[in-house]
Amino acid sequence: MPSGDGKGGNMIRIGILGYGNLGRGVEYAVEANPDMELAAVFTRRDPASVKPRTQVPVVAASQAAEWKDKVDVLILCGGSATDLPKQTPEFAKLFNVVDSFDTHANIPTHYAAVDAAAKAAGHVGVISVGWDPGMFSLARVYANAVLTNGADYTFWGRGVSQGHSDAIRRIPGVRDAKQYTVPVPAALEAVRSGSNPTLTTREKHTRECYVVLEEGADAAAVEKAIVTMPNYFSDYDTTVHFISEEELQRNHAGLAHGGFVIRSGATGENNAHKHVIEFSLKLDSNPEFTACVLAAYARAAYRLAAEGAKGCKTVLDIAPCYLTVQTDAELRKALL
Amino acid sequence: MPSGDGKGGNMIRIGILGYGNLGRGVEYAVEANPDMELAAVFTRRDPASVKPRTQVPVVAASQAAEWKDKVDVLILCGGSATDLPKQTPEFAKLFNVVDSFDTHANIPTHYAAVDAAAKAAGHVGVISVGWDPGMFSLARVYANAVLTNGADYTFWGRGVSQGHSDAIRRIPGVRDAKQYTVPVPAALEAVRSGSNPTLTTREKHTRECYVVLEEGADAAAVEKAIVTMPNYFSDYDTTVHFISEEELQRNHAGLAHGGFVIRSGATGENNAHKHVIEFSLKLDSNPEFTACVLAAYARAAYRLAAEGAKGCKTVLDIAPCYLTVQTDAELRKALL
Repeated sequence: MPSGDGKGGNMIRIGILGYGNLGRGVEYAVEANPDMELAAVFTRRDPASVKPRTQVPVVAASQAAEWKDKVDVLILCGGSATDLPKQTPEFAKLFNVVDSFDTHANIPTHYAAVDAAAKAAGHVGVISVGWDPGMFSLARVYANAVLTNGADYTFWGRGVSQGHSDAIRRIPGVRDAKQYTVPVPAALEAVRSGSNPTLTTREKHTRECYVVLEEGADAAAVEKAIVTMPNYFSDYDTTVHFISEEELQRNHAGLAHGGFVIRSGATGENNAHKHVIEFSLKLDSNPEFTACVLAAYARAAYRLAAEGAKGCKTVLDIAPCYLTVQTDAELRKALL
Repeated sequence: MPSGDGKGGNMIRIGILGYGNLGRGVEYAVEANPDMELAAVFTRRDPASVKPRTQVPVVAASQAAEWKDKVDVLILCGGSATDLPKQTPEFAKLFNVVDSFDTHANIPTHYAAVDAAAKAAGHVGVISVGWDPGMFSLARVYANAVLTNGADYTFWGRGVSQGHSDAIRRIPGVRDAKQYTVPVPAALEAVRSGSNPTLTTREKHTRECYVVLEEGADAAAVEKAIVTMPNYFSDYDTTVHFISEEELQRNHAGLAHGGFVIRSGATGENNAHKHVIEFSLKLDSNPEFTACVLAAYARAAYRLAAEGAKGCKTVLDIAPCYLTVQTDAELRKALL
């Protein structure tokens, strides 16, 4: 990338929209990047009710336009179901934006909406940044580009699936629940062997549910409702554990997650040579790690905008050199 | 990336310079990519003595200028010690070029030479493409960009180190030798635990040597010469096995290799949350896999040149979307 585009220059002024687990993670991530500073936290709640860990102004989201020239990149920390489809195109009118939109099936629609808004306003919008989509997408694309003759496998976990936990909570009689997605060790080993196994949904992951019942609820009925639930559980081996609210708080409040992207393929005469490419993450805090990825791509958004780029980008459109604080020459010397 | 730049359009015409293990690997890789065709093999040997596996013209390297308009990208398959420092800048005058220059310490010098030649000629030159440098560099840079507070670890093997095998062969009394670099399992586990251990050279890898002696050579003297050799062996736990030439051919002719890039780091309050990012390769054929990476970056060189790019690039300068045969929209839908 060209020099003089912000590398070693001005601080990148970051805004956060939404101060939940992810927003708090971005606050930490900005501190961990020497060329960034947090300019403001924007919220749809009463700003007086939001107390950031650091000394940073809290601003009503409705007043964001006043910060147009005081924020270089806005990192959107809302959810993919209802927040981001609306917010990312809307705030791309005011700022360069980065989001972690993760509803895979709706990415093309979201891309089109953000692209139109960002192009019209002359901003850069980077969507679907995080670990999946995000770093796992990178692993899949690089591995596919290199091993053209092969098969892809993505395993998630061990970690909490928010969507599956929510699905359990909607069952009558359930007060609270956490659902862990767990890769099946034998499936992982089969994939790593390079044998390109065909694996059913059931063979790849198991699901573990920790459920707190309402008083007087029928445990057997709840368990049946879980394990037979289409799409979410019926295609998996699912175990259900009924526990107390105290135990759920004590043992299942963590936000750890992770997973594996593996591509195995073959080359050469009669495809005799097998190769296995594996990328994995083991994360103590899903939101704090996602926030780190968002911060790196906020730097890219800032630099791309400084170069005159406009419109929507994903991690697949951005060269790695845009992500780090080091200059290209430093990268070639130290990390290439 | 812009549409209409070769995606789904013309076939990319590839040239190979040097028909050894790597050149043969590229010949296979071109066949495995539906948008590529092999135009010619260039050689410094007598062209009549070179017999490609497929029906492709073999051309004296000195006649390459005549192929200027019949080859889109030349993939250089020579060695990093003496071939590539001379060849890559030289052939960048005629073609877009891709090489696998892997002498890490000399990358800045090589970059400058290729950049000057490619810019003057209006070509793209992609250097240091393969798995290390190459895919391991990508893993290091992405992981550093995301986990800014952490430590890097690269392990190689189990696989044959050409440089170390050559160093043994230069010892008087040695007829032939193969040296395996082997990661120490306990070190790998310590790194994966996220404890950010400080590891000495000796703690990370062991070296296994399989040596065929000349008749009458002094085995004890050869062993001592190996294990005490500075830089190559003295900092490692090295084992030396004396075997027959037949056994070397039978059991140690393979070209398998691989390794691990791991970054562990911490985020959040008091850095309480640990994260581990791991990328690994397990390769049956080092040259055939390297060739696959070269082919993917040949596609990128072709597309970058079609966009008007000029000069030297590395894997760090190229967005992933340039590497695959799929369109950007297909990538967003299927792999993001």
